[in-house]
Amino acid sequence: MAEQRTFAAALAVVMALSVLSPAVSGRQAPSAPDDVIADLVVANHILAMENVLDAMGHVSVRHPSRPDRFLLARSMPPELVTAADILELDFDANPIDARGRTSYLERFIHSEIYRARRDVNAIVHCHAPSLIPFADSDVPLRAMYHMAAFIADGVPVFDIRQAAGITDLLVRDAKLGKALAASLGNKSAALMRHHGAVVVATSIPNVVGRSVYLDVNARVQIQTMSLGGKFTSVDPAEAKLRMTDPNEYARAWELWKRKVSR
Amino acid sequence: MAEQRTFAAALAVVMALSVLSPAVSGRQAPSAPDDVIADLVVANHILAMENVLDAMGHVSVRHPSRPDRFLLARSMPPELVTAADILELDFDANPIDARGRTSYLERFIHSEIYRARRDVNAIVHCHAPSLIPFADSDVPLRAMYHMAAFIADGVPVFDIRQAAGITDLLVRDAKLGKALAASLGNKSAALMRHHGAVVVATSIPNVVGRSVYLDVNARVQIQTMSLGGKFTSVDPAEAKLRMTDPNEYARAWELWKRKVSR
Amino acid sequence: MAEQRTFAAALAVVMALSVLSPAVSGRQAPSAPDDVIADLVVANHILAMENVLDAMGHVSVRHPSRPDRFLLARSMPPELVTAADILELDFDANPIDARGRTSYLERFIHSEIYRARRDVNAIVHCHAPSLIPFADSDVPLRAMYHMAAFIADGVPVFDIRQAAGITDLLVRDAKLGKALAASLGNKSAALMRHHGAVVVATSIPNVVGRSVYLDVNARVQIQTMSLGGKFTSVDPAEAKLRMTDPNEYARAWELWKRKVSR
Amino acid sequence: MAEQRTFAAALAVVMALSVLSPAVSGRQAPSAPDDVIADLVVANHILAMENVLDAMGHVSVRHPSRPDRFLLARSMPPELVTAADILELDFDANPIDARGRTSYLERFIHSEIYRARRDVNAIVHCHAPSLIPFADSDVPLRAMYHMAAFIADGVPVFDIRQAAGITDLLVRDAKLGKALAASLGNKSAALMRHHGAVVVATSIPNVVGRSVYLDVNARVQIQTMSLGGKFTSVDPAEAKLRMTDPNEYARAWELWKRKVSR
Repeated sequence: MAEQRTFAAALAVVMALSVLSPAVSGRQAPSAPDDVIADLVVANHILAMENVLDAMGHVSVRHPSRPDRFLLARSMPPELVTAADILELDFDANPIDARGRTSYLERFIHSEIYRARRDVNAIVHCHAPSLIPFADSDVPLRAMYHMAAFIADGVPVFDIRQAAGITDLLVRDAKLGKALAASLGNKSAALMRHHGAVVVATSIPNVVGRSVYLDVNARVQIQTMSLGGKFTSVDPAEAKLRMTDPNEYARAWELWKRKVSR
Repeated sequence: MAEQRTFAAALAVVMALSVLSPAVSGRQAPSAPDDVIADLVVANHILAMENVLDAMGHVSVRHPSRPDRFLLARSMPPELVTAADILELDFDANPIDARGRTSYLERFIHSEIYRARRDVNAIVHCHAPSLIPFADSDVPLRAMYHMAAFIADGVPVFDIRQAAGITDLLVRDAKLGKALAASLGNKSAALMRHHGAVVVATSIPNVVGRSVYLDVNARVQIQTMSLGGKFTSVDPAEAKLRMTDPNEYARAWELWKRKVSR
Repeated sequence: MAEQRTFAAALAVVMALSVLSPAVSGRQAPSAPDDVIADLVVANHILAMENVLDAMGHVSVRHPSRPDRFLLARSMPPELVTAADILELDFDANPIDARGRTSYLERFIHSEIYRARRDVNAIVHCHAPSLIPFADSDVPLRAMYHMAAFIADGVPVFDIRQAAGITDLLVRDAKLGKALAASLGNKSAALMRHHGAVVVATSIPNVVGRSVYLDVNARVQIQTMSLGGKFTSVDPAEAKLRMTDPNEYARAWELWKRKVSR
Repeated sequence: MAEQRTFAAALAVVMALSVLSPAVSGRQAPSAPDDVIADLVVANHILAMENVLDAMGHVSVRHPSRPDRFLLARSMPPELVTAADILELDFDANPIDARGRTSYLERFIHSEIYRARRDVNAIVHCHAPSLIPFADSDVPLRAMYHMAAFIADGVPVFDIRQAAGITDLLVRDAKLGKALAASLGNKSAALMRHHGAVVVATSIPNVVGRSVYLDVNARVQIQTMSLGGKFTSVDPAEAKLRMTDPNEYARAWELWKRKVSR
């Protein structure tokens, strides 16, 4: 609670400065560091290589020096993203300096989760086929092994119909983004009924690693359940001990980065 | 109804002109625009890359200026098709200017659907392994997520045996083509028992996108049902809202086109 | 029956000549045509590319001018086979001119089927993972779609234990080869319990095509049965009509050949 | 028993010499032969290519002239390992000459199995997704075909929770390594609940071959059980006859080695 209040205060200061000072706020704001943009580009390519994203879906990172903004590619296939395609957006999901570049329709997924979750610095929205069975059915997704320990405390399912009745299923405005963020709560991932999933983490490598292993884990659970026996999953107490490394997926990130640069 | 009558009238005019004027009709007709042929070649390559087609199956497009004709590769593996392999066929499935190039045996799938469905401008016939389980069984294929919203109103199954008794299972004449078109009705896809499927759309990118996601969707449903729980699918009302974009698969088409050109 | 007697007579003549004439028989026999050897090499590569064979398994062809002999690679991974690796073997599974090249241990699979089946000109022995579930269980493999029509009359299961008690599961002599050939009978494929399968056809392209589609078909049946509904398979009468083309897999062969030569 | 005592005596001599003689023991010990290191590098690459290992997991080999030591890559993705990354470790899992290279956290898996199993010369620890269903459930992994005959006598499941209560699931010390080795007993593989598996063999090619086919076999069993029928697996007596070749996977090793060197 204290932390949340501090965060809110910091945000308030940033926003106040935005109004007062064109040097800090506004359209000529210093752009994000090149290494962050480079990592976001690599994340797009890795998620495509690992089939978490296909032509659709997106990955974002919170702006390192402007916590009220985030970076996200313009509307395009992740596999083709370059540094020139990265947009900076505010919490109303408006691009700061679009220069003709179109934004993803569902950018509200990102803006509203960053607004609600100060601990989150990176977000993936995907349609990985392995996750839809758990989004569409009453079978809960469980942590089948330690590489997916981050979901041991459960994966909520966001049902857009309960939030907004009959829609086109897309998170196309702030209201729907807020509803999704509310479903996610303090968890690391949420499924989206008839749609896909959202995964959050403290960094780009972590959100990429979590997304890749969430997909593997879902396939493992599907195969486990097809055996027809009894099975167990990772205990939340075990998961808590397992999740202490802030660079949990560093080794995988090193490999994936090398592979997409070939 | 009014639209159908207008279409029939337009077709009648085209056909009348065909008889009267060698410049419009006949073997020296102006060939289809290069960009349409190029897109059809790319569609062949994408569908092979995405494993919707293997050595078998085909994709066609209605001739843009001659609605009573369509373009289809000569009988060959889709992955190897070039512009020189594209034939122009009429509604009797006869090639206009074959020059020794052999037609696909099952070209009647295309001719009879184009004849019956004025809204259809592109058709895929495939044997994707993910679709056969739904073609062969009493389990209906359902729209598991928004990328396959176009089947939310159901996917009929064409059983050639009910239409024609014991056959070799192939749609090798106009009568069988008409029976298939009748099974398809006004839907976007039909399964063919012990055979495969047919997918229709308003454009080449759309029929390619629908075919790719029909395959993904089928695999998702198989995995969902293997979990053994209760599940829901996209509601037709949601699907109707989701399907308003005439360039629904533009982003995927952009990616796929780039990939096959590497 | 008459045909079988003619065949037996032809074989007898060939064998008699083999004894009398060193020009026809023996170690200096004219080698098989280069194009047949080239096709056998390509068949090895295609079956590896399509994951029908991995490092194990083999494909053979009957010698075109010596029906009592067949061609088979020396003991090595199919993917690496070249023309220099092709051996000629007789019906006792002895290589004619080994020159230090080791034969596959299980070459008796080939020799005994060629001896028993005059209609067979090409044989594949494989361990494709999709086929083992049907080899190990009481669930019969069925023809799920027209591309696998050749198994509509059933796929017998060879259980080496019933033939020879406790063994190392390998078909390592003529007696076991004969037992396998007896299980196969007049069918197009047989499963081998705890081992794999054997597929036979009239030509190299046909045995490659049948092997590839037997694998696809098995995966389709597994997925169909996982749906839990009722399903049907291709009727033998339909299959008979479907199987009249002696070059059934010509289009696929053309594609595969091109792909392995890249 | 006699053999175990001889082994213990040999080890005691080696260890005594280690204390007395800096030429034999210690940090300047003659390094392992280049060909063993080269094979270990290749094994890392093969296991990555075959998807037994991803960014995680490891493979080791016992030092050929120092049976109380083993070789293992520094902490890094297997796919990227080079000869310069290979460390030599003792049975306390301490690197002999680390020169700043970090060891895998779970190296105790290797040290304690080498200590307990004199017949084992190579070990793989992996998280192959196909194995987790059997690690997490009450369904025993069985030998579905002869290529996996080495598990016909059963695959024990190591449950770290029974050994040590709530942990982070990792084998991060000698006590946990000993508990895993005790679960493994005299078998060829053990599953690790909520984690993965360990596979042991007499040589690098054999442990790679066993790991690859353990993965294939698990997928085969999953598919077999999804059919819902009765099935059988390889009899231990059959397996014993099948397992007499000390170079069982030589042909596969030859192929895999060639493929990773492309």
